[in-house]
Amino acid sequence: MFPTAERILAGDRRALARAATSVENRTPEARALLAELFGNTGRALTLGITGPPGAGKSTLTDQLARHLRAEGHTVGIIAVDPSSPYTGGAILGDRIRMQSHYSDPGVFIRSMATRGNLGGIAEATADLALLLDAAGFDTILIETVGVGQDEVEIASLADVTLVVLVPGMGDDVQAIKAGIMEIADLFVLNKADQPGIEKLEREVQFLLQLSDTPEGRQPGIVRTVASEGTGIGEVLVRAREAVRPHSREAAWRCRLRKMLLERLREKLPADILERAAHLVATRERDPYTLVSAWVEQIDRGKPISD
Amino acid sequence: MFPTAERILAGDRRALARAATSVENRTPEARALLAELFGNTGRALTLGITGPPGAGKSTLTDQLARHLRAEGHTVGIIAVDPSSPYTGGAILGDRIRMQSHYSDPGVFIRSMATRGNLGGIAEATADLALLLDAAGFDTILIETVGVGQDEVEIASLADVTLVVLVPGMGDDVQAIKAGIMEIADLFVLNKADQPGIEKLEREVQFLLQLSDTPEGRQPGIVRTVASEGTGIGEVLVRAREAVRPHSREAAWRCRLRKMLLERLREKLPADILERAAHLVATRERDPYTLVSAWVEQIDRGKPISD
Repeated sequence: MFPTAERILAGDRRALARAATSVENRTPEARALLAELFGNTGRALTLGITGPPGAGKSTLTDQLARHLRAEGHTVGIIAVDPSSPYTGGAILGDRIRMQSHYSDPGVFIRSMATRGNLGGIAEATADLALLLDAAGFDTILIETVGVGQDEVEIASLADVTLVVLVPGMGDDVQAIKAGIMEIADLFVLNKADQPGIEKLEREVQFLLQLSDTPEGRQPGIVRTVASEGTGIGEVLVRAREAVRPHSREAAWRCRLRKMLLERLREKLPADILERAAHLVATRERDPYTLVSAWVEQIDRGKPISD
Repeated sequence: MFPTAERILAGDRRALARAATSVENRTPEARALLAELFGNTGRALTLGITGPPGAGKSTLTDQLARHLRAEGHTVGIIAVDPSSPYTGGAILGDRIRMQSHYSDPGVFIRSMATRGNLGGIAEATADLALLLDAAGFDTILIETVGVGQDEVEIASLADVTLVVLVPGMGDDVQAIKAGIMEIADLFVLNKADQPGIEKLEREVQFLLQLSDTPEGRQPGIVRTVASEGTGIGEVLVRAREAVRPHSREAAWRCRLRKMLLERLREKLPADILERAAHLVATRERDPYTLVSAWVEQIDRGKPISD
């Protein structure tokens, strides 16, 4: 039986896990459930945690979850990071450490497969965050590898986006700045006990001066040693301060468009696509005229046909 | 006057530059031009060059272009990499080196802005590659930062995808493998004169053994010192060997779907989206029911309305 909204709202853990899987699989049942639950969402604080591989994002996520639990909060964790121990790409020690969360009813963890269509994963992540919000988790941590624009997009679903950097990245700080400077609400300089931390902070400050952050918003900088739990409390304080009142409406503009496109994908049947791809690859048809014909069929309220 | 297909086919450089800009701006004129030119495409070999920041992708691209020119080929370069000297994110020495290409009529360089919608950039990159193909460039190099899935997608537009790695990445090789192992046709181990090259090659071989490469395809491994031009010829030989006969049809399946979605984006007027985002952010409407109503309007051949 498909989990009902009542069971999710009542905190039924198994119902939540099954609903989460259904959300990941993008089923119509999940959509209907989320439509019903939507009025119960909007209460959770969502933190995006992003940064390059090796920055210690998972360790930070782990420590944030511990700190939040100690404060009496409930925590949902969504990992969209192939290097995350939650997602499976990790060394054994990490995994064992994470397992302590699995026995805690105040923590719900779901890792998202990053194979296949990442566009779909951004949608699934957003829906999953809403599901956890409705289920009563008051803080949601979304961990992504923040180098590609897709992951940046996932991180930007959050109320506040933390960008995690570590000393010794060298030119890579510059390389990744393009997309990241625009979405960072708070820079977390992790492994702050390592050499090069001063240089890293100067570089970030320099980049912040250069970049035209929207509406005078100035991201903060916090140092941490996540592996020792140092600086975690301050990250949370500063993250809560960084919540911007209008960010959610802008995020919904972006999301609604994506939700529509995800649904419109279904309008192109696989067999028609297959035949079309063959005709284009062999240069019998040009793709621009072909796609225009499809758009016209849709405009006339007709299903796409050859 | 908008550049005509005739002028592009005749090798008119200014017409090409203007058409390229129009392609980047996703104009209907560019679509009409590409529809006309499409019959003249399909001749170029397209190489995707991807890998993490700092791997030396731009230097490799530069050296590949030099080598190809020396062989008598013409080269189109598309850079979708914020750290590329072509795109502007580079140190001065790189930029001066690159400028020698700009005076060579056998090389056309276009860097793509990575701000804003990267989805649109994947489309623009694909169209630009077709434009350069039609204009007679027989080899097209597409340079992207290969960590995010979006860039991986751009790289997968190519006939052959080179993944550039360098020694000393440590766990990062594992971190990036998820998306990259599936698209790599050839691993280029750059900076092969540096310590750690043996370890890197072992790691890549190990990952190759673990991964289930589709249809028994086994990506090759080549060592280079791109800054000295070492190994460039072998990269080209191996890249040409790696062209798979059926890859283009699969690529067109993916592209046709994306071309359709890009066109369907226009169906959602900005003002309606704005109002809808407000209603959803304030929880007056739920987004799932709202989007379903839009889909129904499109199904009935009607424009989207509130």
